[in-house]
Amino acid sequence: MSKYIKGTRKKAGKSPGTLIHVGDYTSENIELTMIEYNKGFSKISQLDSIEECFSMKETDTIKWVNIEGLHDISIIEKIGKKFNFHPLMLEDILNTNQRPKMDDYDDYIFIVFKMVYYNEEVKEIVTEQVSFVLVDNYVFSFQEFKGDVFDGVRERIQSGKGNIRKLGADYLIYALVDSIVDSYFFILEQIGNTSEDIEHKLMEEPQKEVLQSIYSLKREMIYLNNSIWPLREVIGNLTRTDSQLIKQNTVLYLRDVYDHVIQVIDIIESYRDIMSGMLDTYLSSISNRTNDVMKVLTIFSTIFIPLTFLAGIYGMNFKNIPELEIPWAYPAFWAVTIIIVLVMLDYFRRKKWL
Amino acid sequence: MSKYIKGTRKKAGKSPGTLIHVGDYTSENIELTMIEYNKGFSKISQLDSIEECFSMKETDTIKWVNIEGLHDISIIEKIGKKFNFHPLMLEDILNTNQRPKMDDYDDYIFIVFKMVYYNEEVKEIVTEQVSFVLVDNYVFSFQEFKGDVFDGVRERIQSGKGNIRKLGADYLIYALVDSIVDSYFFILEQIGNTSEDIEHKLMEEPQKEVLQSIYSLKREMIYLNNSIWPLREVIGNLTRTDSQLIKQNTVLYLRDVYDHVIQVIDIIESYRDIMSGMLDTYLSSISNRTNDVMKVLTIFSTIFIPLTFLAGIYGMNFKNIPELEIPWAYPAFWAVTIIIVLVMLDYFRRKKWL
Amino acid sequence: MSKYIKGTRKKAGKSPGTLIHVGDYTSENIELTMIEYNKGFSKISQLDSIEECFSMKETDTIKWVNIEGLHDISIIEKIGKKFNFHPLMLEDILNTNQRPKMDDYDDYIFIVFKMVYYNEEVKEIVTEQVSFVLVDNYVFSFQEFKGDVFDGVRERIQSGKGNIRKLGADYLIYALVDSIVDSYFFILEQIGNTSEDIEHKLMEEPQKEVLQSIYSLKREMIYLNNSIWPLREVIGNLTRTDSQLIKQNTVLYLRDVYDHVIQVIDIIESYRDIMSGMLDTYLSSISNRTNDVMKVLTIFSTIFIPLTFLAGIYGMNFKNIPELEIPWAYPAFWAVTIIIVLVMLDYFRRKKWL
Amino acid sequence: MSKYIKGTRKKAGKSPGTLIHVGDYTSENIELTMIEYNKGFSKISQLDSIEECFSMKETDTIKWVNIEGLHDISIIEKIGKKFNFHPLMLEDILNTNQRPKMDDYDDYIFIVFKMVYYNEEVKEIVTEQVSFVLVDNYVFSFQEFKGDVFDGVRERIQSGKGNIRKLGADYLIYALVDSIVDSYFFILEQIGNTSEDIEHKLMEEPQKEVLQSIYSLKREMIYLNNSIWPLREVIGNLTRTDSQLIKQNTVLYLRDVYDHVIQVIDIIESYRDIMSGMLDTYLSSISNRTNDVMKVLTIFSTIFIPLTFLAGIYGMNFKNIPELEIPWAYPAFWAVTIIIVLVMLDYFRRKKWL
Amino acid sequence: MSKYIKGTRKKAGKSPGTLIHVGDYTSENIELTMIEYNKGFSKISQLDSIEECFSMKETDTIKWVNIEGLHDISIIEKIGKKFNFHPLMLEDILNTNQRPKMDDYDDYIFIVFKMVYYNEEVKEIVTEQVSFVLVDNYVFSFQEFKGDVFDGVRERIQSGKGNIRKLGADYLIYALVDSIVDSYFFILEQIGNTSEDIEHKLMEEPQKEVLQSIYSLKREMIYLNNSIWPLREVIGNLTRTDSQLIKQNTVLYLRDVYDHVIQVIDIIESYRDIMSGMLDTYLSSISNRTNDVMKVLTIFSTIFIPLTFLAGIYGMNFKNIPELEIPWAYPAFWAVTIIIVLVMLDYFRRKKWL
Repeated sequence: MSKYIKGTRKKAGKSPGTLIHVGDYTSENIELTMIEYNKGFSKISQLDSIEECFSMKETDTIKWVNIEGLHDISIIEKIGKKFNFHPLMLEDILNTNQRPKMDDYDDYIFIVFKMVYYNEEVKEIVTEQVSFVLVDNYVFSFQEFKGDVFDGVRERIQSGKGNIRKLGADYLIYALVDSIVDSYFFILEQIGNTSEDIEHKLMEEPQKEVLQSIYSLKREMIYLNNSIWPLREVIGNLTRTDSQLIKQNTVLYLRDVYDHVIQVIDIIESYRDIMSGMLDTYLSSISNRTNDVMKVLTIFSTIFIPLTFLAGIYGMNFKNIPELEIPWAYPAFWAVTIIIVLVMLDYFRRKKWL
Repeated sequence: MSKYIKGTRKKAGKSPGTLIHVGDYTSENIELTMIEYNKGFSKISQLDSIEECFSMKETDTIKWVNIEGLHDISIIEKIGKKFNFHPLMLEDILNTNQRPKMDDYDDYIFIVFKMVYYNEEVKEIVTEQVSFVLVDNYVFSFQEFKGDVFDGVRERIQSGKGNIRKLGADYLIYALVDSIVDSYFFILEQIGNTSEDIEHKLMEEPQKEVLQSIYSLKREMIYLNNSIWPLREVIGNLTRTDSQLIKQNTVLYLRDVYDHVIQVIDIIESYRDIMSGMLDTYLSSISNRTNDVMKVLTIFSTIFIPLTFLAGIYGMNFKNIPELEIPWAYPAFWAVTIIIVLVMLDYFRRKKWL
Repeated sequence: MSKYIKGTRKKAGKSPGTLIHVGDYTSENIELTMIEYNKGFSKISQLDSIEECFSMKETDTIKWVNIEGLHDISIIEKIGKKFNFHPLMLEDILNTNQRPKMDDYDDYIFIVFKMVYYNEEVKEIVTEQVSFVLVDNYVFSFQEFKGDVFDGVRERIQSGKGNIRKLGADYLIYALVDSIVDSYFFILEQIGNTSEDIEHKLMEEPQKEVLQSIYSLKREMIYLNNSIWPLREVIGNLTRTDSQLIKQNTVLYLRDVYDHVIQVIDIIESYRDIMSGMLDTYLSSISNRTNDVMKVLTIFSTIFIPLTFLAGIYGMNFKNIPELEIPWAYPAFWAVTIIIVLVMLDYFRRKKWL
Repeated sequence: MSKYIKGTRKKAGKSPGTLIHVGDYTSENIELTMIEYNKGFSKISQLDSIEECFSMKETDTIKWVNIEGLHDISIIEKIGKKFNFHPLMLEDILNTNQRPKMDDYDDYIFIVFKMVYYNEEVKEIVTEQVSFVLVDNYVFSFQEFKGDVFDGVRERIQSGKGNIRKLGADYLIYALVDSIVDSYFFILEQIGNTSEDIEHKLMEEPQKEVLQSIYSLKREMIYLNNSIWPLREVIGNLTRTDSQLIKQNTVLYLRDVYDHVIQVIDIIESYRDIMSGMLDTYLSSISNRTNDVMKVLTIFSTIFIPLTFLAGIYGMNFKNIPELEIPWAYPAFWAVTIIIVLVMLDYFRRKKWL
Repeated sequence: MSKYIKGTRKKAGKSPGTLIHVGDYTSENIELTMIEYNKGFSKISQLDSIEECFSMKETDTIKWVNIEGLHDISIIEKIGKKFNFHPLMLEDILNTNQRPKMDDYDDYIFIVFKMVYYNEEVKEIVTEQVSFVLVDNYVFSFQEFKGDVFDGVRERIQSGKGNIRKLGADYLIYALVDSIVDSYFFILEQIGNTSEDIEHKLMEEPQKEVLQSIYSLKREMIYLNNSIWPLREVIGNLTRTDSQLIKQNTVLYLRDVYDHVIQVIDIIESYRDIMSGMLDTYLSSISNRTNDVMKVLTIFSTIFIPLTFLAGIYGMNFKNIPELEIPWAYPAFWAVTIIIVLVMLDYFRRKKWL
């Protein structure tokens, strides 16, 4: 549960604008990759130092600089100095507990997003913060860890398919944002599968573990919901921005992504309804089971308790029990017993307990 | 459940604007039908190729071109090229997991809707995406499958009844939208019938299957609700649009459809309340049943357990039990037994357990 | 339940603007009544044909023409032709499944309302659609059935009490709307009485029928709520309208009605809260009863089962049971029995089960 | 429950503007009190007739005329005639089922409020309608019954403490409104105490009466909530009014009252949450109790039923039961019995049922 | 619970503007601390009397005057007189039951906040009211008790780290507000830990105390929620203010705090969802336990009750029971017994009760 607030305290009490990396993961190397492209060509290069990408500032190619790993603060500082970024923005890049948001600093646009993916190892949804800075024809993307959901975008740039190479850096931003929103659909699909599994278990005899599954699913929905709502706001703001950096044509595409975000929200809403239904089903199944157990007990008890009483009668040692002397008394006793059993069974059958 | 997100992933990672059909159904032939009409005449024709309808671009008749089946991308591409449509719009036509929406591209209006109908075979509500493009005096409608809810409109055009032939292509759009909204009423009527069935079952002894019925109904309501809310927005936007393509007179009619959508929303809301009431009734019926079972058990047990104890007493082998020697002891035992039974029954009757 | 959607389908597929009566009731005669009045006089007259009222179009008296029964479409058509009404409005008058609404057609105002009353025969709340058209100094009111809630208004016109005769046709509209809103208070009062009855039953031993009563009440609240919310909107719009037909002075009165509608909404809201409280009380009463039944069973069982065991011991046929030979063993057995019973009773008393 | 709609019907069907007192209480004398004050002096006087206060209309002192009792309509009529008040306003004063509201009639302001206090006799919250009219430097206050929450204001005027005598009639309105809002805090404090009592009862063994207490508390909250929300609106409107009668300085004070109203709403909201928590606690305590009862039954039954069977075995009359002949069989039987009991007890202890 | 409304009544009936301290704690000395700083230096000094800080009114250093303890009204009065503050503001400082708010009095800004911290002694969340007044380059902060969450800010001023000394008094306000919002994160972290503890207990056999823990947690969330919502509003207003006292640059920082507040609200929302999930888990665990208890009872009873009956049969004293004479009858009886037990056990195993 602590993941909802992890790390936020590390900074408390520090001066705002102080660059401190707030995150879990500081062992790996930081990877710097630059993709440079225009209509005619594209080139991927691994950078040894961040300064390498500054030199091309004057060329008119579009440059996507991807920084994977945030623990080397000096990289952020160098970029900040070179492009004259606001210290608060640099701080926000490093604070990986940011709420998704967009800040429009006239000369550049800063966007923070949450990328979601399913971690196969720990079997739970993991989110990773990605920040984008759009400045001139540079797009900087800052990720916490290696690995992302942008491979489709890379491929399109390299192959030159679609119009990604024909359009500007703002279109690249759109393409990246689109990939992130798509990652939500992927997660929802997996949640859909899990949810179907649970439903099947609910149809049969549901065990206590089912409740756990429903709640862990529900918690994941809460988590997703918390990530997607600010996304909606951010993308909505992007479509309405009057920044010079986002061209009118790209706004059209962003509106499309906006529709997808709304759709994600709708699906999440539906799943929440469905899950609360599953919960009710589970609870009513417990009640039904208690009911079934009670019926078995009641049937057995109400049949045999009177019979035991009857047997008890003729086990009494009274001097003078005339029935005991009758020769056909014992078979008669059995006959009565069987009749009582049949009457009771019929009674229960009519009550639909059998 | 997967229907909430079916197909959306097929596109993920592709370049936006790439035309890919995202849907289930690709085996049938695509059917192209054109209805051409004006005040004086109307003509239905099956088209062999989509180009046939382009030639009449200059005539002032209204042309409704209905495309049933989306898997032949070339048709969409040809229309797109001819009328110079935006690639995003073409993509949206093919992506059948679109959320209902309206996009106003100045020269043409694009509308995506969900048409609902009850599939008798699989016994569940099915939705089909229909997109409309209104351009000049053309109306293009793109459907996923054959069969639709527009027969009434076709008939009115052919018979010339009402003022459909007197008014423009925007009125045709209205008529089509109206038919779609009517299809929701039809579904709601069927849901109403099912819901009445369930209520009758709830009045009697409700079985576990009832819970399933309530939930499948509830899920259908969630599904309908998700389709109708964007509809409201879209039609609302249509009535407020300042597009030249929608005439003032038609806006009046659209406002009428808007009222119907609101009514659909109200009805859905009512059904949701009613269903949550049915759920409570079901749950309380389980509790009531457990209560009834308990009562039967308790009555039998509390009557016979003391009597069995009494019989046990006189079955003891103590040397010296004076009662055993009394000649009228056995009849007295029976008398006591009967008195105890009567007292207990009276006690239960006063407790209203009988 | 079908009343939420009754009749709507009859029209589906027809051309909009086609006049078709959508309603249940077509056997009675249509009654046409006209009340003509001004400051000085008032006159009620039964009309044989609707044309009779057209002739006075030029006089400056206020004319309230009340049409009870909608199945004779020709009457509506004649009025429509005479006053040049929009076909959609005429259609809305006939479609008695309209949502309450106000349409301002510049030269005339069209208002649809739901009037509620309690049908003593079927013991449920019935709604009837009433439409008003305010044009020049005519007020047309269209009702589905005979009988309405306007007798107070008629009386005031005839007696000349208050200022109804001094003010214009818009004030008449206000007076009629006020009567309709008052009818909601009347229904709420009856619901209040029923709800008090149910509460008394809940205080005692609640039976299964109570649940039914709560739900039928709840459903009526849903129904009322659905009718009153659009009313709020409509009257709100009336108070804000810039139509020439509604004078400033009347707006003041309408604002008063608006306050009443808000009050109705508040009361409904309170009743819904109260009803959900009654439901909880009912459910907890079932649990409490199960608890009581369990206690009786447990007390009897836990007292007698050990005793029966004890009796069983001394009913065994072991050769060598020394107690059997002791002369005072039998009285001692009884003493032990009584002690055990007393101890148990004390235990249960301390547990507050007795 | 009928208090939510009491009296409203009395007026239904009457002409609006007809002055009819809608209320319960008509036996007492009406009390007319006037407090006249300015910076330098203050004077309280009992008026015999309302006309006495009209004569000072030209003086520049502030005059607060308090009317306790509404059944003498002539008083209201006289004031109305003298100050030329709108008939609707006079009607609203008399209709004590008004929703709190503010009407700005340019020359005067009309405010209706609900004052709450705890009636010690009937042990429930009582509300009383108070209307204020602010006109020139008159403040008229109309109350239903004798006794109010304004003693603090009176005292401040008489003692000249604070700046009440230095500021105008609008400040007096503020002071009165402030007293009314304070009365809500007083009621909430009492509800807080009751709620703490209930909580203590819930910690122990909760009885059925607790449910009743929770619900009567809940109902009182519904009632308070219904009164306070319109208050918020009214005071909000007062702070935003552009009436000449409310000076800018007073608006500042009114904003302070507005903050208090918001605080009352917050507290009510918290109490509602707390009460729904108490309800859940109560319901779960019933379940827990059933559980406890079941455990006692189960422990006793599962220990003694097998033992009784065992005793039954050796009570059989088979010819050939070798154990019966063994001399140490009886002690052995007891040994087995004791071992079984110990094993069972251990089992239950490990299950944490003991 | 009374903490929601503590003290508010003390003032009721008093003249507004009367300075009365509404709070619990009046024994300690009031501590006056002034931190004076500008770009170049910083100085902390304990003040003996509040007048000491007035003398530097003309210097251009920034002065943060911190008053801990509110029971000496004369201090507030002196400040009020010196800076010409509005009496209502002074009253608000003393009334420690204020709702967080911001009042912009043109020449100065008044802000009331709630600071939260976890009181280790009483083991519950405590809130303390802090008011800020920003006037010229003075910042006055008024606290109820000694101890606060501002140590980080003090340290930054003294060490000159960050840009706190370079920027104005409005930045100081920002830094203080930021510390307060951070204190919410700290509390949420502790709530997160408690909540994890409860979850672990729920996984095992949950006891009745768990319900108490959930509710006390839930109540704390209600409490936090009530504090944070007005905070959102206040900080939102600060970012939108057009006051000259807040510079544009600081607004950027405040927007950052605003984002944090939104995040706090999101986290609280998530925790509320999680807690309601825990409640459901607890309730279903009671049902499950009842179910388990029932199963044990039913298994024992249904196995042994028929067997006891059988033993009872052969304990009867009928003359003529042929089985009694058969030599192998007794072993046969045992065989039958064991077969019955095995059949029953298999039946229960197939029912998954074992």
